[in-house]
Amino acid sequence: MPTIRIATEAELRAAVPLDRAAVACVADAFRALAEGRVRMPPILRLDIPEARGEVDVKTAHIAGVLSFAIKISPGFFDNPALGLPSVNGLMTLFSAETGLLEAVLLDNGYLTDIRTAAAGAVAADALARPDATRAAIIGAGAQAALQLEALTLVRPIAAATLWARDPAKAAAAARALSDRLAIPVAAAPSVESAVAGADIVVTTTPAEAPIVKSAHLRPGQHVTAMGSDAEHKTEIDPQALARADLLYVADSLAQTRRLGELNHAVAAGLVGADAAFPELGAVLTGAAPGRTDPAQITLCDLTGTGAQDTAIATFALRRLAAAGAGAPFET
Amino acid sequence: MPTIRIATEAELRAAVPLDRAAVACVADAFRALAEGRVRMPPILRLDIPEARGEVDVKTAHIAGVLSFAIKISPGFFDNPALGLPSVNGLMTLFSAETGLLEAVLLDNGYLTDIRTAAAGAVAADALARPDATRAAIIGAGAQAALQLEALTLVRPIAAATLWARDPAKAAAAARALSDRLAIPVAAAPSVESAVAGADIVVTTTPAEAPIVKSAHLRPGQHVTAMGSDAEHKTEIDPQALARADLLYVADSLAQTRRLGELNHAVAAGLVGADAAFPELGAVLTGAAPGRTDPAQITLCDLTGTGAQDTAIATFALRRLAAAGAGAPFET
Repeated sequence: MPTIRIATEAELRAAVPLDRAAVACVADAFRALAEGRVRMPPILRLDIPEARGEVDVKTAHIAGVLSFAIKISPGFFDNPALGLPSVNGLMTLFSAETGLLEAVLLDNGYLTDIRTAAAGAVAADALARPDATRAAIIGAGAQAALQLEALTLVRPIAAATLWARDPAKAAAAARALSDRLAIPVAAAPSVESAVAGADIVVTTTPAEAPIVKSAHLRPGQHVTAMGSDAEHKTEIDPQALARADLLYVADSLAQTRRLGELNHAVAAGLVGADAAFPELGAVLTGAAPGRTDPAQITLCDLTGTGAQDTAIATFALRRLAAAGAGAPFET
Repeated sequence: MPTIRIATEAELRAAVPLDRAAVACVADAFRALAEGRVRMPPILRLDIPEARGEVDVKTAHIAGVLSFAIKISPGFFDNPALGLPSVNGLMTLFSAETGLLEAVLLDNGYLTDIRTAAAGAVAADALARPDATRAAIIGAGAQAALQLEALTLVRPIAAATLWARDPAKAAAAARALSDRLAIPVAAAPSVESAVAGADIVVTTTPAEAPIVKSAHLRPGQHVTAMGSDAEHKTEIDPQALARADLLYVADSLAQTRRLGELNHAVAAGLVGADAAFPELGAVLTGAAPGRTDPAQITLCDLTGTGAQDTAIATFALRRLAAAGAGAPFET
């Protein structure tokens, strides 16, 4: 009987920290996407409205990668009242050659957090000025912290500002990040003041109306917008996408047209529905130009792709195997 | 940390034999389908043609059932050359109230076999004459055996015939079934002769052209066609569906119009594309009449539904828990 590996969230947290290798594996996934080496069927979605529940199932096969992941992400929004987290779920990993199950990664969404933060690092590394040292983070959740940490992996970040709707949460998150990353992180009184002095801005909120205005953005800044991953979400003023001095880059153009900031700029008539924008992977492979001028503003719109899931799950299994972690389970 | 249950195929085979309780749980799923209590999103399908692989992910939520299953079914058709089974996979079971993972059932397709055989029992019990004693099975695979066993749970089956394309396989399957069920099972030299004396006919093949002709069918017979579950598959002469003395019943009309025998009868112009036929669940609840005459022919077209998967997985977890089987796993 074949043996599979079963890993808990604690084991995955230990084996797969946010590091340069995780960022590199996610960068490879973006390259594969840009080169047309990824098969990514539409998401399966089950709604259970009586429990305010929704379940997404995502998968992608990357040619040349020996495994593929199927990720199951339940979100049940009455859970906090029961003392339970809203988001749970797991990733299953299968051989791309035989379809046999290889691993069950009981990550409760942790690997999604890591691959999402890693994408922020990939975007900043590809598009931010090499001399970027000051970051602004919008939001105070788990991704706010991870995105700032991700930036420190690719740029010499020396200081950061943080803004969130709730000033107490912003102050607490700023303090925690100062301690964790050993750089000064200051809670800012407004979005404008948070963004004003930053070289890199990362928005990490579930906002349904723009938070960062076009007028906030200064020449030379890079912005990563990672909050919008559904039709009704948006963090960035759609006017920004129409600026002549701004380069817009999508993680997946097919997705950002539907789910990202681009969706709203098209809906507002500011950008043509079929306007061709580069994808992040094409910038990485050199198929599309990235930043061409230090004064240019770059904006990377991240909606999250199944290719990142397959990349991080495959990476996690390698790490678990190398560490002898994750219970071997005879099937 | 919550504890989940992880069960192997061997544990599931021991805990979930084909029995009347399994049949009853699948009958409940058909009733729920007919009463509009099931949410069943479209199947997620990933193809990996370079390995002749395809992966289906199915789910369904049944109102009132406390869990829902997500079933992952990889089929990799070059596997036999590697000494591996073509079909593998697992079911995952989640709380319908919180979305938390409850169980990982490493069944390698076993629970699908059981819920499919159980559907055959439900169909025969709802539609075959009460005095049916003779069965004919078309096919010699795992479902051929399970479908005959399923019939013995709902009718006093005293003898059976079996036909398969390969006479040696048919003879071996007939012998094995005679031993297992302690009734005479004879390999038949032709489909016509297999069907001729039968009260119940079950077709269990992956045929892509009809095997059972309309002229083979005799008054009073019940036929369950469970092989066709894809656009190109068909086992029953489409002329049969147009017979005035035949009652056609679908497991899910939306599915059989696309994937079942009905698909081919509509394509041949023998039946209207929007012709209304009863569903099995409606016959069970009494919302639609079933057999109204001992001389009527009944034909039940089974394509397989996600509701059956949720029903059998929930049932399996209950059985595992009652038996103290399946490793508890702290997540």
